[in-house]
Amino acid sequence: MKFIAPNLALHLLGILPFLSLAALASPSSAQTRLPSNLMPQPANIKQTAGALRIDANFTVALSGHTEPRLQRASERFLTQLHRQTALLFAKTSSDAAKATLVVHTDHASKEIQELGEDESYSLEVTATGAKLNAANPLGVLRGLQTFLQLVEVTPGGFAAPAVTIEDQPRFPWRGLMIDVSRHFIPLGVLKRNLDGMEAVKMNVFHWHLSENQGFRVESKKFPKLHELGSDGLYYTQEEIHDFIIYARDRGIRVVPEFDMPGHSTAWFVGYPELASGSGPYSVERRWGIFDPAIDPTREDTYKFLDELIAEMAKLFPDNYFHIGGDEVNGKEWDANKKIQEFKKSHNLKTNEDLQAYFSQRVQKLVTKHGKAVVGWDEVFIPGVPKDIVIQSWRGQQSLAAAAQQGYHGILSNGYYLDLGWSAARHYAVDPMSGAAAGLTDDQKKLILGGESCMWSEYVDPENIDSRIWPRNAAIAERFWSPQSVTDSSSRVSGSDPALTLYSRLDVESARLEWLGLTHRSYYHKMLQRIAGPASPEEFAALRNLADVVEPVKDYTREQTAPVEPNSQLPLSRLVDAVSLESDAGRHFSELVDKFLAASCRDTATAYELRTQLALWSQNDAAFATLALKSALAQEAVLTSRDLSAIGTVGLRALDAIATGKPLATDQQSQLNSVLSEAAKPKAQLILIPAAALRKLIDAASQPNTCAPAKP
Amino acid sequence: MKFIAPNLALHLLGILPFLSLAALASPSSAQTRLPSNLMPQPANIKQTAGALRIDANFTVALSGHTEPRLQRASERFLTQLHRQTALLFAKTSSDAAKATLVVHTDHASKEIQELGEDESYSLEVTATGAKLNAANPLGVLRGLQTFLQLVEVTPGGFAAPAVTIEDQPRFPWRGLMIDVSRHFIPLGVLKRNLDGMEAVKMNVFHWHLSENQGFRVESKKFPKLHELGSDGLYYTQEEIHDFIIYARDRGIRVVPEFDMPGHSTAWFVGYPELASGSGPYSVERRWGIFDPAIDPTREDTYKFLDELIAEMAKLFPDNYFHIGGDEVNGKEWDANKKIQEFKKSHNLKTNEDLQAYFSQRVQKLVTKHGKAVVGWDEVFIPGVPKDIVIQSWRGQQSLAAAAQQGYHGILSNGYYLDLGWSAARHYAVDPMSGAAAGLTDDQKKLILGGESCMWSEYVDPENIDSRIWPRNAAIAERFWSPQSVTDSSSRVSGSDPALTLYSRLDVESARLEWLGLTHRSYYHKMLQRIAGPASPEEFAALRNLADVVEPVKDYTREQTAPVEPNSQLPLSRLVDAVSLESDAGRHFSELVDKFLAASCRDTATAYELRTQLALWSQNDAAFATLALKSALAQEAVLTSRDLSAIGTVGLRALDAIATGKPLATDQQSQLNSVLSEAAKPKAQLILIPAAALRKLIDAASQPNTCAPAKP
Repeated sequence: MKFIAPNLALHLLGILPFLSLAALASPSSAQTRLPSNLMPQPANIKQTAGALRIDANFTVALSGHTEPRLQRASERFLTQLHRQTALLFAKTSSDAAKATLVVHTDHASKEIQELGEDESYSLEVTATGAKLNAANPLGVLRGLQTFLQLVEVTPGGFAAPAVTIEDQPRFPWRGLMIDVSRHFIPLGVLKRNLDGMEAVKMNVFHWHLSENQGFRVESKKFPKLHELGSDGLYYTQEEIHDFIIYARDRGIRVVPEFDMPGHSTAWFVGYPELASGSGPYSVERRWGIFDPAIDPTREDTYKFLDELIAEMAKLFPDNYFHIGGDEVNGKEWDANKKIQEFKKSHNLKTNEDLQAYFSQRVQKLVTKHGKAVVGWDEVFIPGVPKDIVIQSWRGQQSLAAAAQQGYHGILSNGYYLDLGWSAARHYAVDPMSGAAAGLTDDQKKLILGGESCMWSEYVDPENIDSRIWPRNAAIAERFWSPQSVTDSSSRVSGSDPALTLYSRLDVESARLEWLGLTHRSYYHKMLQRIAGPASPEEFAALRNLADVVEPVKDYTREQTAPVEPNSQLPLSRLVDAVSLESDAGRHFSELVDKFLAASCRDTATAYELRTQLALWSQNDAAFATLALKSALAQEAVLTSRDLSAIGTVGLRALDAIATGKPLATDQQSQLNSVLSEAAKPKAQLILIPAAALRKLIDAASQPNTCAPAKP
Repeated sequence: MKFIAPNLALHLLGILPFLSLAALASPSSAQTRLPSNLMPQPANIKQTAGALRIDANFTVALSGHTEPRLQRASERFLTQLHRQTALLFAKTSSDAAKATLVVHTDHASKEIQELGEDESYSLEVTATGAKLNAANPLGVLRGLQTFLQLVEVTPGGFAAPAVTIEDQPRFPWRGLMIDVSRHFIPLGVLKRNLDGMEAVKMNVFHWHLSENQGFRVESKKFPKLHELGSDGLYYTQEEIHDFIIYARDRGIRVVPEFDMPGHSTAWFVGYPELASGSGPYSVERRWGIFDPAIDPTREDTYKFLDELIAEMAKLFPDNYFHIGGDEVNGKEWDANKKIQEFKKSHNLKTNEDLQAYFSQRVQKLVTKHGKAVVGWDEVFIPGVPKDIVIQSWRGQQSLAAAAQQGYHGILSNGYYLDLGWSAARHYAVDPMSGAAAGLTDDQKKLILGGESCMWSEYVDPENIDSRIWPRNAAIAERFWSPQSVTDSSSRVSGSDPALTLYSRLDVESARLEWLGLTHRSYYHKMLQRIAGPASPEEFAALRNLADVVEPVKDYTREQTAPVEPNSQLPLSRLVDAVSLESDAGRHFSELVDKFLAASCRDTATAYELRTQLALWSQNDAAFATLALKSALAQEAVLTSRDLSAIGTVGLRALDAIATGKPLATDQQSQLNSVLSEAAKPKAQLILIPAAALRKLIDAASQPNTCAPAKP
């Protein structure tokens, strides 16, 4: 038996704690890299000399203002640091004089977290220790996450580079909305998403709690809301209370949304008298915009809402209360004679006027119970009180219009996670761009930030994490970091040329997995369901295919559904399993670009391309036998054939390039027609490599594609 | 946009529940296969015509004897069926007349589950419904798991083949032992392992609760046991109570072990007066056999044990109480004059005699508190009461010796999960083989079964599942299924030639993941820690390497440790992350066999081999750059070089075979010496493909390796 000499590495990882520390090399190589994986990037960072080794002796001490929440944050911090490093830290907290990381908090934050509270912090890491200072616990929470992101494995063990960071958020409202109504999402899943939000410094959880498809909160005042309107899937008030504490521990406000007067069918199952139609109503199973709407003309409606809002305003301590307000189609109003008469007698010309009347009355109730209103674009109507916050699903223009009239707004247009956009595309959306860019400085201050939105038509507890993460981390950076931080700027800001948005997302993604999110691990499980008792070769064929397809984008899935989608359909199809953004597809595209940019005689890249293409060209054989066995695999048979077809196309293009014989026009058009067919979505899946292959055919059609070999 | 016609498949998956059922094709193709993935295989199974479709209308009804445990089992069953199929089942239980699966239970089982209770059941599945009958709830629990395993995706959707099963266990004691003392394992991890045990019909959880490294149970009588002997890592009595209910729900007995008189250093931290040495004692951090042992000569010792056993016998309701008894080295006894005098005055010649004296007195205490004793081989001494159960870590021979004298025994030798054996190797061990095969029928009845053992020197909450599963499922089958069920028999019992132990383990492994076990998902997370901020290419290189190495086997890790291992070392090395049994290594070996068995002109296999070998031969380039960045990757640099070297060796062998020019003797010996070097473990890792490559070199050295191409 022969043993090599990894001992130095082992020492530095704490694997030889009994040896003298003096014998250990300094992890000086950590000095040569800028901290590469901060997400969101801090407002100000300066690198200094050296690095702080992280080993089992690492300790944290709290000084200044203390409270149990800070103690819990420090324990959570050590747990996560353990997950990242596997180091076993001493349980006992230590005094400030000796601790590795000394946290100083000036004073308490507000008892109920408020919009705009100070979240700034400063963090100084040197080779001998680290200091985190913040005005209040919120800044401490943010700074602890930054510290965790600084810790990396280095040649000398785990270390945090020496840096000085002064950081504060760009926007005070940095939210994630989750729709728990179209598909019910259990609290455990929501909690791990709060953990993810904390990791990327988001501070508002917007809880979309009621919809046509479900009313998800226990109401003691009106129990038929949850008893008849939720299929038994709701949160008790006690659970909600605990959840809010959990969020507060992470510096996250919880804003509840009760969407009205539309999107409210589930309310009417138990309380049909609230509706504008004659009922009876049942919990909606389909997706879409539906007719049922609250009757805005009956005084009893406002009596009911007064009592409900009173109850919910007490349950949810946040200052803001979201009343929805979106997408009322007015059909029930039009069909109701009494409502028509009411409109006439109150001089309300349009249904928009009627909704404005309703909104104003509801806003007064919300105000009466001590809260400020948040609503979707539709609630922004002339004369609403100035403390309202407009959440724009329409875009920067409507946000700008509101700001010009002195109203606060947050942007969600561009941040809809369910549309399947790439992280880079979401990341490029800025609340201050477009119409908002032209606002005065004072008006700009009215734009409070934004929220990403996870609408839940096609997510369930199994795949929801994968639809939120890691893309949401890019959006979180957009809300926290200075506007100047962009993908292209991050590519050059450090010494490491690979420091792209995606390389940072990769690292953040791993951290989020350690936190307990399942956005990667779900994938194998869902593929196994589709594969059933597949052979290893068949399973590999399924995975090869799944790795390079994405669901159709935007609302195409809705519009092209082979059967009418609804809440009772299992989300077990390939389109539910695959990632919204194919890493393998992106890597292939980069590989093609690299091949074409370099000399075609770059044989290593050519070999890699050829291996990949050959794999695809042969992949359908095993997939086809799987599809004969599994009904869940069956719908992807044509996509699988397309993948093999484009693999063969790519090989022919490579051959043409390698031999220097350009494709003839008819060959070229034949290959292009294969690509065109493959580029058509089938089974609601997009075959990602098709686009990159077109470049390869173009290159193969040029006579002088290859630069001459350099001698 | 073009849509294909997957609608039939979608219907059958419940994706079109609004269509008439009559329009649906029967999933008749499920008839053509024997149920392939039952594990453990039932005692008797007969396939009949047709299959039972499983869709969203599936319901379960309980009839006959009922109790809340059966209701919970039925809910758990539906939850797991949902995880397997993603189908959304109605929540309401239905009456027997209409239910798809009707469960009938004759009567209650014992209030405290007993050894040898009836666990038999019969299960009849037809195209129209299923009936599960059992004498008591234990049989129902077993049968529900069989039903879950019958459900598979088929061309026509999910279905269970029509079968008639009459099943009962071969052995009444089918256990898993987990050592929670060397590394503390939290209850959540243990619970998911109970779920896994239920899935494979194991019925005893042996809880190794005390060790030199920790006393893990709250004692109200002697609180310094857990307060000073556990580093704060122990289970409260309330938690234990809940855990036992959780186990009982799954038909699992909980047998606690308090190991004495050795393996007890942690007891002495709080109660040094119990020890034979002079102390002081501290919780042991190292692994191994240590000197401290209980003083068997003082009457106060037995007074203490009387009270402790009284307390623990009440806390753990099972009839059996494990007192350990293994590995006393006697050094503290030899060094203690009073003990030496006691031996003389009591005519105890050896330390074995002294331990026998101790054991007998402890056994009397256990009996006094209403329990029967289980102990390791060492407690089997002439004259012990007949109700004792010997747990043999030594092997079938000592089990047979005990049986010949009328003592019960269970086998653990051959089932130590920590030794890194393959599933096939564990599976080949039979409690009735070797010396036990020669016992009379009456003596054979004394062999109650066996237990797999998870000793925890090298497991922690992160990787423990991967060290237990899926291999433990093979052991569970050994304990449940008839002796005639072997890997080779299972290969031919069905119509599917791929029905090997490993193909069934693969399927079972997926099911275990759906249950919440992390034996596969942990892998990526641990590799990410090692990789740190690696590029995608570097990460792939790490994974390629990790996929084909295994930890050194048996006690080699202990014996060859580069630094003295102990409980404070993080389990973050590659050897902690990689699987104990490399799937990729096994597949490669099968591929080589296939290539050599077929004509060498089997170009598809040759291509697959070549691709794999080329990948390996190039793999070290990216790994080497990673190793420069990560201290955790660093120790594998030589193993990575070896992998690339054997990849190149394999390519040269393939070339020789392809060209028909056999390797010259010196070439052959040169390549073999590369393999020999690669076959030496480094960084405590074994490079698995090295063995299969030797076959390839042998073939490449033969002049007429290739059969002539068939015309």
